[in-house]
Amino acid sequence: MPQPTASRVADVRVTPILITDPPLLNLQGVHQPLTPRTVVEVRTASGHVGLGETYGDTEYLTAIEAVAARLEGTDTARPADLRTIVDQVCDSAATLGSAADVPASGLRGKRDLGKLKASVFAAFETAYLDAWARVLGVPVHALLGGRVRDRVDYSAYLFYKWAGHPGAEPDAWGAALDPDGVVEQARALIDRNGFRSIKLKGGVFAPDAEIAAIRALHRAFPGLPLRLDPNSAWSAETGVYVARELAGVLEYLEDPTAGIDAMAEVHAATGMPLATNMCVTGFDEVPEAFAKRAVQVVLSDHHYWGGLRATLDLAALCRTHGVAVSMHSNTHLGISLAAMTHVAAVVPDLHHACDTHRPWQDEDVITRPHTFHGGAVEVSDAPGLGVELDRDRLADLHRRWADSDVRDRDDAAAMRAVDPDWHAPRLPRW
Amino acid sequence: MPQPTASRVADVRVTPILITDPPLLNLQGVHQPLTPRTVVEVRTASGHVGLGETYGDTEYLTAIEAVAARLEGTDTARPADLRTIVDQVCDSAATLGSAADVPASGLRGKRDLGKLKASVFAAFETAYLDAWARVLGVPVHALLGGRVRDRVDYSAYLFYKWAGHPGAEPDAWGAALDPDGVVEQARALIDRNGFRSIKLKGGVFAPDAEIAAIRALHRAFPGLPLRLDPNSAWSAETGVYVARELAGVLEYLEDPTAGIDAMAEVHAATGMPLATNMCVTGFDEVPEAFAKRAVQVVLSDHHYWGGLRATLDLAALCRTHGVAVSMHSNTHLGISLAAMTHVAAVVPDLHHACDTHRPWQDEDVITRPHTFHGGAVEVSDAPGLGVELDRDRLADLHRRWADSDVRDRDDAAAMRAVDPDWHAPRLPRW
Repeated sequence: MPQPTASRVADVRVTPILITDPPLLNLQGVHQPLTPRTVVEVRTASGHVGLGETYGDTEYLTAIEAVAARLEGTDTARPADLRTIVDQVCDSAATLGSAADVPASGLRGKRDLGKLKASVFAAFETAYLDAWARVLGVPVHALLGGRVRDRVDYSAYLFYKWAGHPGAEPDAWGAALDPDGVVEQARALIDRNGFRSIKLKGGVFAPDAEIAAIRALHRAFPGLPLRLDPNSAWSAETGVYVARELAGVLEYLEDPTAGIDAMAEVHAATGMPLATNMCVTGFDEVPEAFAKRAVQVVLSDHHYWGGLRATLDLAALCRTHGVAVSMHSNTHLGISLAAMTHVAAVVPDLHHACDTHRPWQDEDVITRPHTFHGGAVEVSDAPGLGVELDRDRLADLHRRWADSDVRDRDDAAAMRAVDPDWHAPRLPRW
Repeated sequence: MPQPTASRVADVRVTPILITDPPLLNLQGVHQPLTPRTVVEVRTASGHVGLGETYGDTEYLTAIEAVAARLEGTDTARPADLRTIVDQVCDSAATLGSAADVPASGLRGKRDLGKLKASVFAAFETAYLDAWARVLGVPVHALLGGRVRDRVDYSAYLFYKWAGHPGAEPDAWGAALDPDGVVEQARALIDRNGFRSIKLKGGVFAPDAEIAAIRALHRAFPGLPLRLDPNSAWSAETGVYVARELAGVLEYLEDPTAGIDAMAEVHAATGMPLATNMCVTGFDEVPEAFAKRAVQVVLSDHHYWGGLRATLDLAALCRTHGVAVSMHSNTHLGISLAAMTHVAAVVPDLHHACDTHRPWQDEDVITRPHTFHGGAVEVSDAPGLGVELDRDRLADLHRRWADSDVRDRDDAAAMRAVDPDWHAPRLPRW
């Protein structure tokens, strides 16, 4: 039996890092060459270390560092005190940007204080669960209710992209700026990881060009579920048009248009299942969205829904209302992929492959990066999340952060390096 | 670190028992002198024993025994296999009574196969959690997300009652058949357990008599939250009448009338918060009930919502939809009270005192029965549920079962011992 104090927090370390990111295009602009991420380590009195990973942008990092300074002595087995501290720090901090001021976060819906709290809590909740599971010698999924599957399916996440960042050499993936390039990229990802579903990040080109890309994928990979996600770039009218053009071709259409009412309009007019990680990104947005039938698949994300247990709450909500649940992916490393896999392993009615940014971020901070077989990640039964921190690598990536002035992800600013007049477009763009 | 096999089921024991029950009156009739209950013991390979407690009626007992026979080797840390077995047994068993045939279960809403499965699963889920928590040396509430409180508040549960069962000596509580008797009973329960909320089981006398009883309680215990539960005995019109008469007096009115539409009508007309453990007793009933604003407080019950984790799912649903959650009580012993207390300790937004049948069932099968201080039960941090089985007592109560022909709870049949023409009334009664 573990000592009652074994699971208490002895020490917390927060490490901001910068990781490389290819020139992936989206509605807001383009991914920067370097993007921030935060790694959280929570060490218990028993000497076990739990890991968490989340956004690295200043507003998160500031709040996370303030919370970390107050966690000593809290119990990883009992996150109530963590929640209280997160709430206090976020309430008193002036870290919350204006909801109208949406750089990269414009890709994940409305922001408010509640969502900031949920995000900050999530960064530590994963680390607490990992630490406590290690104290107990059990996998995290067991603490979440027990896995119902051995492997979690992920989808190939295609991006329109340049061959390389402005002024830099082309990367190994090359350009993808038309249907042929997209198909070639899909083939490369599938060859490498065996993915059996495909998602294309859209909102980059006019709708007909993206329809053509999806059709090309459909021809090249018959039978594979396909998704298109323009990050709400379109009007409801355009959404209806695309949904009709791609009826029978898409598994679902993700965030074709902005807001619950416009989403509901597209679905009502077309019957196309709509997924979202934008118009519903917090529990307070669920009732209206479900009542209006605005979304048929909620793409959960433990980083901003409030952690792994909150993800299960969301799954229960979706199940009860006959709405599907799957998983959104933000830029991530192996700690988050482990967390995503553990919680996905527990959700009984997960009927769509989850998103992952792998292999776009091929750097990692864990000693044995995840591998995909048949597009799936095996669910680990090792204690905790089942991943170990590569401290040398973490130190390298932190040094890169310390030596750089990149502090926030800003896809529009990155685009201005090429197009000085660029600004994130007003919606609807098309 | 526990061995991977430590948490596997080595042995399951199912013990039907009969417990004494006072002559408590309700819409259906009266509690029998003896009522069945089932105790489940799950022993792991490591030798730890987890406990569960549920209904003892034949349809449950039959299914539970069939499931128990198949559980060896399943993992208490991973209830997915348990769920599969429960589903298979319930699907193949002809144990499900007709939904129209509702003796005691008529007090807890519609029955169907899904609810039978949830009930049978719940009986074992508690035992699995208890066993696994003991293997790990942690309290059950920790496995549910960690307690957010040290004590769980319960309410005094008043019943109209006879002084004793027909032909038997009066019991220590005496009769309660009018406002004075109800106030006296409340005083006895509060003196004994310190309850700070009061619920009266109604549906026994005409509405004006029960209104008078609530008013008498309001005068005798000013400031204490009061509830009245006629088990849907009334028409919507009567529900509106009572809600208006008791506006400002009741904390909430529980199941004044049958069905979602009639409940919604009563609430819309009066604004009185309505609680239920009848018109919403399964997840599939939630969406319509919430959409129609039929209920403002869902009274969860792990015995039929599908266990402790399912109770947390329900709490998340309620939280998201701005509906309160509290807890229903069926006749129970100390194992169930422990389970109720563990899950209630974890729900952050539990703002009403839970129901308990204590002290009506003063027999128990645990070595140290729970005590109430200030109407609350302390949350145990001992491993598992924190209660130990009294095997001698269990054996006595099982012998009573074996020596008796009472196999099902049937409040109407018990009433026929006094009134041979009695039948459970058609609704609405008033």
